[in-house]
Amino acid sequence: MNLRTSYQQTSHQLSGHGRRNVGVLQQAFADVDPNQASDHYGTGEAIERFEQKLAQELGTEDAIFFPSGTMAQQIALRIWADETGNRNVAYHPLCHLEIHEQDGLKELHHLEPMLIGDDKRLMTIDEVKALPDVACLLIELPQRELGGYLPPFTELEAISHHCRERGIRLHLDGARLFETLPYYEKTAADVCALFDSVYVSFYKGIGGIAGAILAGPKPFCTEARVWKRRYGGDLIGLYPYIIPADYYYELRKDRMGTYYEQAKELARRFNALDGVWTTPDVPVTSMFHLHMNGSTEAVSSWIERVQTETGIGITGYVVPHNGYCSTEISVGDGVGEIDESQLARLFEQLER
Amino acid sequence: MNLRTSYQQTSHQLSGHGRRNVGVLQQAFADVDPNQASDHYGTGEAIERFEQKLAQELGTEDAIFFPSGTMAQQIALRIWADETGNRNVAYHPLCHLEIHEQDGLKELHHLEPMLIGDDKRLMTIDEVKALPDVACLLIELPQRELGGYLPPFTELEAISHHCRERGIRLHLDGARLFETLPYYEKTAADVCALFDSVYVSFYKGIGGIAGAILAGPKPFCTEARVWKRRYGGDLIGLYPYIIPADYYYELRKDRMGTYYEQAKELARRFNALDGVWTTPDVPVTSMFHLHMNGSTEAVSSWIERVQTETGIGITGYVVPHNGYCSTEISVGDGVGEIDESQLARLFEQLER
Repeated sequence: MNLRTSYQQTSHQLSGHGRRNVGVLQQAFADVDPNQASDHYGTGEAIERFEQKLAQELGTEDAIFFPSGTMAQQIALRIWADETGNRNVAYHPLCHLEIHEQDGLKELHHLEPMLIGDDKRLMTIDEVKALPDVACLLIELPQRELGGYLPPFTELEAISHHCRERGIRLHLDGARLFETLPYYEKTAADVCALFDSVYVSFYKGIGGIAGAILAGPKPFCTEARVWKRRYGGDLIGLYPYIIPADYYYELRKDRMGTYYEQAKELARRFNALDGVWTTPDVPVTSMFHLHMNGSTEAVSSWIERVQTETGIGITGYVVPHNGYCSTEISVGDGVGEIDESQLARLFEQLER
Repeated sequence: MNLRTSYQQTSHQLSGHGRRNVGVLQQAFADVDPNQASDHYGTGEAIERFEQKLAQELGTEDAIFFPSGTMAQQIALRIWADETGNRNVAYHPLCHLEIHEQDGLKELHHLEPMLIGDDKRLMTIDEVKALPDVACLLIELPQRELGGYLPPFTELEAISHHCRERGIRLHLDGARLFETLPYYEKTAADVCALFDSVYVSFYKGIGGIAGAILAGPKPFCTEARVWKRRYGGDLIGLYPYIIPADYYYELRKDRMGTYYEQAKELARRFNALDGVWTTPDVPVTSMFHLHMNGSTEAVSSWIERVQTETGIGITGYVVPHNGYCSTEISVGDGVGEIDESQLARLFEQLER
């Protein structure tokens, strides 16, 4: 048995909303009228109603449903680059566009990203102020690859103010925007008001199947719909993603505060273990990174043993660093299904 | 009432497999085990099994499931252009890439399409032979925007032979490939053997929800998977399209001969009406274009009246030309649900 297999065989997991299986789709469609019409190449009630609902939630003029955030964000940056006539865009070194998209932004659009700050921490307002002219600055909230850090809201406001003064478009990678709201104590619209365009995902904290919303001013969205067609993202029917996105959004949008509290509690318990720590030390969203001293082999076999003994899944992988290993914990409905005695047993086993 | 509304209110339609509604998805998922795992960014049994099955059906080394044909075909042409170091590609003036994709190929890849032949007929072997050096020639079978014509198979063989001799890659837009097989009396693999790469769709004759397969040699597919990621087409879960694609493929792949015969019979009856004709005169697949003398207003109100009186849908739109109007008929399961007396009544009403 390896770590991945032992994780897959657990009955409960600390991360997520349960397994990503066909039942996720079947549940979302169980009570939908079979006669409800498909959307049709971006038109029709099935897509327009959800787009308008999200535009309202995010406080933007318009919103577009995309099959993926990769597609949505490349398009956002391209539009701002075309609008300003500047091929330079700025983002953090751990931005999704930089590390997970096979250089799509460069290969498809020939935009030139400038990386701000370093890959150990969030960018700072001083680094933003030191930027040369760029078309657009992308900020990810929370910064996922760091474990889910957030800048103070006042710093976001200062960055937004600075960008507006300088004519730099500010784009929000809000893949996990809804997860930030309990810490910020703001509405989604409060946060989005600081940005010119925003992307949100429906399969992270929301737990849908796939799909994203790109939102912003009307002319921006009009152009984004043209690019969506160019990319082949304007499918004849996107309802297989839209209906679950809507279903799980309604189911979970008000649970983000609970996930946040549960993440803090889990992190506290992990930090009480020898040779184990989390980043952030105290989570600010539903996620954190978990670090454990030891080699990949030692850490993997330790977790594997605990998972097998307790039936509770911590992780299916670890990433090796210099003397320690890391993994990600992202709290959803799953942890709430583990009762306190099981959790206590998990941490007892981890302590041995 | 207008033509579109009168069509939507009919109980049966000459085209298609019934309404494109949520029931299409629910039917495909009704008997699927809820514990079946989602695919995961292009990996996992849910996607790999279908890709390998289609590679076998098409006789290619590998195959990739894409959310759309638009994405798949742009990528195919880009790969052949990169391989040959030639930015020129050739296709028919009514090619999907030329008229339905907002110039994605040019805007995203800066490829230069050369249009072969004219928009009233198929390209000829002589026109292919007269081509300057191009990276790739795309041929669509059947040519949808002309009503669904096919070149004789011997001519396809000659084009394939010529392209191989000259080092021109030959790509098949086989959106409706399965619909061509009864006329050609060939297997899908027989047809694909003439091409270097092939795209097939799962929501035309097959009647799935959306999605496409791009197939070809292993190195081509390896590169196409990188581009799929760049485009944002490598979703965390494509199973909402894959499972219906597989379900409806199995349901309908052996019905293409029936659709073809039904299309020929419908065309014969339309051609017997005054001022009405079809292209092709005798269909070679399940589809044809229907032309009717008269202005948009006259033709629309004529069809609207017949649709309202008979409950049988012919079309929801007509395209005006000089003195006549046209629409498309594409036969699926729907026409088989109309009994002969209803059909006879339809053509009696049309005759008045």
